[in-house]
Amino acid sequence: MPTFADRLINAVRKKSSPCVVGLDPRIDLMPEFVRSGRGALTRATVCSIISDFHELVLDAVADLIPAVKPQLAFYEQYGLGGLEAYENTVNAARERGLLVIADGKRNDISSTAEAYATAFLSDSGFYSDGMTATPYLGRDSLEPFVKACAQHGKGLFVVLKTSNPGSRDFQDQRLESSGRPLYESIAAIIEDLGKGLIGESGYSSIGAVVGATFPEDGRRLRALMPHAIILVPGYGAQGGSAQSAAACFHENGLGAVVSSSRGITYAHGDPAIGRAAFIQIVRDNTRRMVDEIVKATSVPTPAR
Amino acid sequence: MPTFADRLINAVRKKSSPCVVGLDPRIDLMPEFVRSGRGALTRATVCSIISDFHELVLDAVADLIPAVKPQLAFYEQYGLGGLEAYENTVNAARERGLLVIADGKRNDISSTAEAYATAFLSDSGFYSDGMTATPYLGRDSLEPFVKACAQHGKGLFVVLKTSNPGSRDFQDQRLESSGRPLYESIAAIIEDLGKGLIGESGYSSIGAVVGATFPEDGRRLRALMPHAIILVPGYGAQGGSAQSAAACFHENGLGAVVSSSRGITYAHGDPAIGRAAFIQIVRDNTRRMVDEIVKATSVPTPAR
Repeated sequence: MPTFADRLINAVRKKSSPCVVGLDPRIDLMPEFVRSGRGALTRATVCSIISDFHELVLDAVADLIPAVKPQLAFYEQYGLGGLEAYENTVNAARERGLLVIADGKRNDISSTAEAYATAFLSDSGFYSDGMTATPYLGRDSLEPFVKACAQHGKGLFVVLKTSNPGSRDFQDQRLESSGRPLYESIAAIIEDLGKGLIGESGYSSIGAVVGATFPEDGRRLRALMPHAIILVPGYGAQGGSAQSAAACFHENGLGAVVSSSRGITYAHGDPAIGRAAFIQIVRDNTRRMVDEIVKATSVPTPAR
Repeated sequence: MPTFADRLINAVRKKSSPCVVGLDPRIDLMPEFVRSGRGALTRATVCSIISDFHELVLDAVADLIPAVKPQLAFYEQYGLGGLEAYENTVNAARERGLLVIADGKRNDISSTAEAYATAFLSDSGFYSDGMTATPYLGRDSLEPFVKACAQHGKGLFVVLKTSNPGSRDFQDQRLESSGRPLYESIAAIIEDLGKGLIGESGYSSIGAVVGATFPEDGRRLRALMPHAIILVPGYGAQGGSAQSAAACFHENGLGAVVSSSRGITYAHGDPAIGRAAFIQIVRDNTRRMVDEIVKATSVPTPAR
């Protein structure tokens, strides 16, 4: 069974694209043509609107990216209809050869952490190839996820440094014991937890989430976790630039994937836009993002 | 509209019970009579087993406790069938006059945090009266939840100090800036975020989660957050005692609610136990817990 890291790195190489499109269902931001004629927002309507919208997006971008990142919060805000749409979207992504990173920033302790790992990294619950988790509860809270990754060929991205101003409140606090920021202690644990899960690519299936807005932190964390794949959100709408995101990559152009959500799927401007024009804009936005990231890093061209 | 804190404190007073029963659906731990004759674990079967099991539990304990705490991880591990059961269980709890605390330890930044607040604290998504959230992402990540609590009369419990050994890894780390543990910085922010949400009870709807296994930390946190209601998990199965949990209460016997899950719902021992005996054990376990906590604190008897 190939590891998650190898599957992701292979897909990045094959598509010459270290980019991920975030899928954040927000019906109010979708073009009118997606919503019109659907009637009231019942559970079934919500499910079909979100599923149809993401099929359009997936068709537009599937050949340009290795993976998608559905954000569970936006699915959960629509209740059961939202989560039914999650299943549809995940199936549609897999049919198109895309990996799925479930962004839910879950965690808990002992048997509850195991339940989350079962929920997203096993054969039951909700499908994903990799998921995000928070570190605050400690190393032992992450271990059930690491175990599930090993068992099922899945991946974990531990939230390390986020792109918001409030990331300074706790993440950046220097510890008395080390004189270094808290996030560096967490980075050491991520690197260590991932040691048993390093694949042929040289990368581990235990990675980290590092926002694109603090390039100096990104560079330090890249060095502290040589085997971790870094998931870099915050590109575009959250203010991260390609140059900032590039700090999380190795010099060979690997080691990170950059994610954009709103900047790809809700950047069409005119709500009255037609279907073909919408698909074109989503595709153009994705292409532009990939070009910018590839230019800022140095992704090798695939062998022919 | 009464605040969440007032609703919870009133219910604690009325029932002379600062105890919460945790609902963790784990079909493999349920008595055989709940599972037998149901056939394969399809989405519909999973939903009906979990829903029926929790109706039994709710009937056994509804008059003894102010609230239940469904743990979302255990619902999510069963996929859509699990979350359909969450809706059924929440409805059954509300019909029996119980408050619902959704334990999902969610969080994210900006519009994603808003989506989680919409998912659990508004009129759409999944119903709860209060939810748990993690603090690592910073003060601004918690603000959308605080806003939703104010708007919808809901409550938030921010994870502060957990009951696992790994809680020492990051939560207990002393900060260079203050010489105090990280969790104390977070406690100060929780108290501050809750200032605008203090109800007639004198308690705020922004509370904290503090495990029952570290009583000295509990006492310090109780003092640092005079207006926060503390949700105390880890009683029973996780090793917390009534004396430990008591550290999180004020001297008047208010200010905290203690939660037990497995120690109530999966402590029947014999899988072949019958329905009536199971109900009796669940009720006895709950009564014993309430008695122990009330003895260790000093909950006032209701006026007659």
